[in-house]
Amino acid sequence: MRRIRLIVQYEGTNYVGWQVQPNGIAVQQMLELALKQLVDEDIRVHGSGRTDSGVHAYAQVAHFDTNAKMPAGKFAIAMNTRLPRDIRVLYSEECSNDFHARFSAKRKQYRYCISLSTHAEVFSRLTCLHIHKGLDVELMNRAAELCLGEHDFGGFMSAGTNIENTTRCIYLSKWTLDGSRLYYDVEGNGFLYNMVRILVGTMLAIGAHERPLEDMQRALSSADRSAAGATAPAHGLMLMRVVYPDFDTKKVLEREF
Amino acid sequence: MRRIRLIVQYEGTNYVGWQVQPNGIAVQQMLELALKQLVDEDIRVHGSGRTDSGVHAYAQVAHFDTNAKMPAGKFAIAMNTRLPRDIRVLYSEECSNDFHARFSAKRKQYRYCISLSTHAEVFSRLTCLHIHKGLDVELMNRAAELCLGEHDFGGFMSAGTNIENTTRCIYLSKWTLDGSRLYYDVEGNGFLYNMVRILVGTMLAIGAHERPLEDMQRALSSADRSAAGATAPAHGLMLMRVVYPDFDTKKVLEREF
Repeated sequence: MRRIRLIVQYEGTNYVGWQVQPNGIAVQQMLELALKQLVDEDIRVHGSGRTDSGVHAYAQVAHFDTNAKMPAGKFAIAMNTRLPRDIRVLYSEECSNDFHARFSAKRKQYRYCISLSTHAEVFSRLTCLHIHKGLDVELMNRAAELCLGEHDFGGFMSAGTNIENTTRCIYLSKWTLDGSRLYYDVEGNGFLYNMVRILVGTMLAIGAHERPLEDMQRALSSADRSAAGATAPAHGLMLMRVVYPDFDTKKVLEREF
Repeated sequence: MRRIRLIVQYEGTNYVGWQVQPNGIAVQQMLELALKQLVDEDIRVHGSGRTDSGVHAYAQVAHFDTNAKMPAGKFAIAMNTRLPRDIRVLYSEECSNDFHARFSAKRKQYRYCISLSTHAEVFSRLTCLHIHKGLDVELMNRAAELCLGEHDFGGFMSAGTNIENTTRCIYLSKWTLDGSRLYYDVEGNGFLYNMVRILVGTMLAIGAHERPLEDMQRALSSADRSAAGATAPAHGLMLMRVVYPDFDTKKVLEREF
């Protein structure tokens, strides 16, 4: 058995998310179907984490085990001939059997994209949230700074999730305005279910003066979901980068493209 | 009767092009349907020119006449509530009855986008042509420079077109490499049917050393279609800007966004 790891890019619009669900087709499933066709094995593909329905990935990492003799680097192109155009395997290589896409991950980076233009732009309609109202970006950045470091993010997790440890460490949390685009970039050692979208929803309410800045601090210290804001829509969110001790999607893609 | 002019943005993927056709839905038609719903008049919308099936517009200009009392600036938002998300009216204003979207246009700018990445990128799959092979961009720029100024572009027009004067003046013709993206920007006082796509197809063949640089000169001087290259695929092409004596889409969008 060899273990192969992949960098996968996808637009989440047409899928129920990364993970196999009863209510539609998942990205994971498409990769498994492509592999089944390719090497005639029933292969389980493990991702670095779930992305929700409608969430995109610039660079998701996944691994799987196979007995197939195909050179590891050829899986990318061979799977792409079988995949729909909104899912691409950008890179494949053999890795240690100790490597696990989820459990070996050290850091993940997400970007949330907002378009502030008067009318919703056509070419970003599936990957940016359109909001046409004034937002106090400076205030949003003060809220974003409060997230830095280690906190109990239990207040920023969708209800109904059972998880013991809700403490995560955030290394980057920053809003950047670029013309009519507003980006939130966040990097951490892990994220709870819907955490980025609830962080964004809370900061959007603060930036629109619908909530005071203090709500961010309150939600961070109380770990109470009701202290945080609404969950921002899925389609503005993109998984940008996953970092492992021996593998960094950003460095690989910079080298390979 | 008042005359209203619009800036329209669209992704061409789902349409048979700008102009009404028997074989599918055109962008023009969608605008006319939205107006019919809005003001209950049978309105003909005139564009600055046709775009082919699959070609996109960052900024197309159109005009129409109406008896409706609605403030001219409100047409954009009112039409958008009725249009699919891959068509947006970005701007509307009243204009002189002398203004004609097609006949008053002085200059147009197009961009052709190529992705040179190893695997086709997901997020540009509908707006960039993916080519994974070495291209001599310097040589392509020498070919692009030959197009500058006034030439008979009869060799760069799809066969079967009946048009008397095939002379056009080109003000900008340049390839730019930006990471794994390659752009061809071209601006002129007008373009023949498929002209940009045939220019691109010819220069791609030159850049891949499948045709000599001299073929560009030969096609320009002979006005013979067979001297030029293949027509590049539609989906890499985008109408970027239309300029009139009193109206420049670029300036309006910079001001309005």
